[in-house]
Amino acid sequence: MIEYRSIRVGLLGAGSVGSQVARLLLEHGDELAQRIGARIELVGIAVRDVDAERDVELPRALLTTDADALILGSDIVIELMGGLEPARTLVLQAIASGADVVTGNKALLATHGPELFAAAEQVGAQLSYEAAVGGAIPILRPLRESLAGDRVERILGIVNGTTNFILDRMDTTGASLEDALATATELGYAEADPTADIGGYDAAQKAAILASIAFHTNVPVEAVHREGITGVSAAQVDSARRAGFVVKLLAICERLVDAETGEEGVSARVYPALVPREHPLASVRGANNAVFVEASAAGPLMFYGAGAGGVQTASAVLGDLVAIARRHVIGGPGMAESTHAELPMFDIGRITTRYAITLEVVDEPGVLERIARVFSEHGVSVEQLQQTVSSGSERATLVIGTHEATESALAETVTSLAENPVVASVASVLRVEGTL
Amino acid sequence: MIEYRSIRVGLLGAGSVGSQVARLLLEHGDELAQRIGARIELVGIAVRDVDAERDVELPRALLTTDADALILGSDIVIELMGGLEPARTLVLQAIASGADVVTGNKALLATHGPELFAAAEQVGAQLSYEAAVGGAIPILRPLRESLAGDRVERILGIVNGTTNFILDRMDTTGASLEDALATATELGYAEADPTADIGGYDAAQKAAILASIAFHTNVPVEAVHREGITGVSAAQVDSARRAGFVVKLLAICERLVDAETGEEGVSARVYPALVPREHPLASVRGANNAVFVEASAAGPLMFYGAGAGGVQTASAVLGDLVAIARRHVIGGPGMAESTHAELPMFDIGRITTRYAITLEVVDEPGVLERIARVFSEHGVSVEQLQQTVSSGSERATLVIGTHEATESALAETVTSLAENPVVASVASVLRVEGTL
Repeated sequence: MIEYRSIRVGLLGAGSVGSQVARLLLEHGDELAQRIGARIELVGIAVRDVDAERDVELPRALLTTDADALILGSDIVIELMGGLEPARTLVLQAIASGADVVTGNKALLATHGPELFAAAEQVGAQLSYEAAVGGAIPILRPLRESLAGDRVERILGIVNGTTNFILDRMDTTGASLEDALATATELGYAEADPTADIGGYDAAQKAAILASIAFHTNVPVEAVHREGITGVSAAQVDSARRAGFVVKLLAICERLVDAETGEEGVSARVYPALVPREHPLASVRGANNAVFVEASAAGPLMFYGAGAGGVQTASAVLGDLVAIARRHVIGGPGMAESTHAELPMFDIGRITTRYAITLEVVDEPGVLERIARVFSEHGVSVEQLQQTVSSGSERATLVIGTHEATESALAETVTSLAENPVVASVASVLRVEGTL
Repeated sequence: MIEYRSIRVGLLGAGSVGSQVARLLLEHGDELAQRIGARIELVGIAVRDVDAERDVELPRALLTTDADALILGSDIVIELMGGLEPARTLVLQAIASGADVVTGNKALLATHGPELFAAAEQVGAQLSYEAAVGGAIPILRPLRESLAGDRVERILGIVNGTTNFILDRMDTTGASLEDALATATELGYAEADPTADIGGYDAAQKAAILASIAFHTNVPVEAVHREGITGVSAAQVDSARRAGFVVKLLAICERLVDAETGEEGVSARVYPALVPREHPLASVRGANNAVFVEASAAGPLMFYGAGAGGVQTASAVLGDLVAIARRHVIGGPGMAESTHAELPMFDIGRITTRYAITLEVVDEPGVLERIARVFSEHGVSVEQLQQTVSSGSERATLVIGTHEATESALAETVTSLAENPVVASVASVLRVEGTL
């Protein structure tokens, strides 16, 4: 039995992830010590109210409400409280006290990332956050380190398990959004208040983090264009399926060059989109996550796995912890944050994409021509157009697929279509992504 | 324009990967310098014969036949010559001269890994080899670092693009192995001598590397059980498809516990197996690779991408190079190799798996009973049995699916089936893996 030196770890938060991190640290201490060359000593777990802690697995002796004292007595601090405050203050305290920090707090990073990184860089502290995106899936480290010599052009990510479960269920059972959400809540895939998930806020935070790392620049969450899935109907999912597509909520990060000015920039956006059935992302089922990366040399890569769950996410936290602990053993600073290349953010209007538009139109001669004119007037070229007339109705249904055009041109097209007298209603507007 | 210090890089080999590495280093020098904080200076490219170099992209001035001098003048040496010698000698020279080394040479690592790692550890040199497995796919770094706090239980890998292309083609077109191989050769997916690929030798080397990293132990390539795809017939692929399976050549690395003795060990093996269509690995098409990892906390993860190709693999080489170069800038030793836990290798006989066996039997009363007895005699329980009699024939076809049993029991069962008078022929024997 080797006598290892010990590294003091303070854990902030004992929720679904925190309690699993504590359990794994206590159960696998010997194995981890062997891999690290030092013993991880869990010195304390800061919680709001010790008596309120129901998790029987947690040793009572480790629980404390004094986070400040815990931080001062820790070499490495793991922040898993979630939310902005007091998380932000405590992480800054930890960094100031000379500790390295592991966090899975995506909201904190997407909102206060630059402040935290600056503080860490100043004192040469490590700030790791693999668990913040994609749960158990190793995605941030591969993006930052494995692809460091390559050039990431585009990321298409299914980064929110709740919405993927809902959309998958709508696709497989034909359920409505409401029913699928109800099932997700029953099965514990959705929170009591599902706004953060179905509103795309959670995905937008992850998109900001992914884009910042992939493009070596700073992408604030406010700069991420965000559309949730609340507008997705069973009819849309059904016609998508019949057309060979599946509706997925995508977090898209893209390197762009302005066609006119030649200006380089990046875009980060979240919206439900049509994905071809043959695309690897289409086969991501249930609450799973996957991040599809297109790099100029590596080509397409996909990282797939459980995007949430206490024990799964704990795996990512421990990965960061072991990496930092090993550096404590072998000495030397950690992996330097790559220099940031502050690229401008392109707003959604400058993005080019393809649309699938479904219109209810009056069934009379010349309608097709008038609709086609609306598209050409806005410089949007139609790739395919399908008209179906239900017998005995004065209405016809038009499904129009466009070629690539700018969001602004497509938006204007949709607006004037809605105003056009021959158009009874714009039934559905969806973007098409992940073209093969 | 910042003046960066420069890091001297010597490249050994200018083949499909080497020439792409050189090109990317020369074309993206500024971008890499910004990310690293130092300039990568490609000081030379060692080739066998300067005049024989047809690659016009390579600056003639950089070409040299004096590898020894190049190594002495390099801070980092990139070995992409392939083969065992002189690669082994030159890598050891580079390490001895104080240089860090990046290699994509799987044969070298699978054969001389321990010797090279020991040499590197002794002088504190870095030896990185992400490109050796899965081409462009970041898999070794995630296994070693991201999952360092987790426990990898099992790896199912499609790690040879040539055989996956061939099996995929047999599955989609019904082609014979010969025809599919011919197509692969035409399209450049197979070498003139395809033995290393279709014989499973390439996959076995990768299995040895994956198992060594995943289980923190040393798995020599000789300890990897290897079966190629030469025995896979169009009929097998066809009946697999009709039964909802696809035939894939799998590299399997497993953590095992002996049922009787409770002894812990690992297994590494390569063979063609039936994979359910719903399994993520079944959707890996063409020459792509994918590594499916089951970790006890993270659950199932999959890493997917291009398993070969000059520029794709160059991406992995550059990732290793940038990581090492950054450490040259910020100082401090590299990531320590985790302590090795020398686990015993379990030979194939101790592995438990499931079989799908197709028999041609004489069509007479009592045959089923006699076949069933053979299985029970060897303690193998039958999960399903399907008999088809073609009219007017005295022969019947039996397809038998077994429950999990040890390889040895299953092998003995097959042997005595072949000897049984009622069995005309054992038409097909395939293992079933990746059960969902």
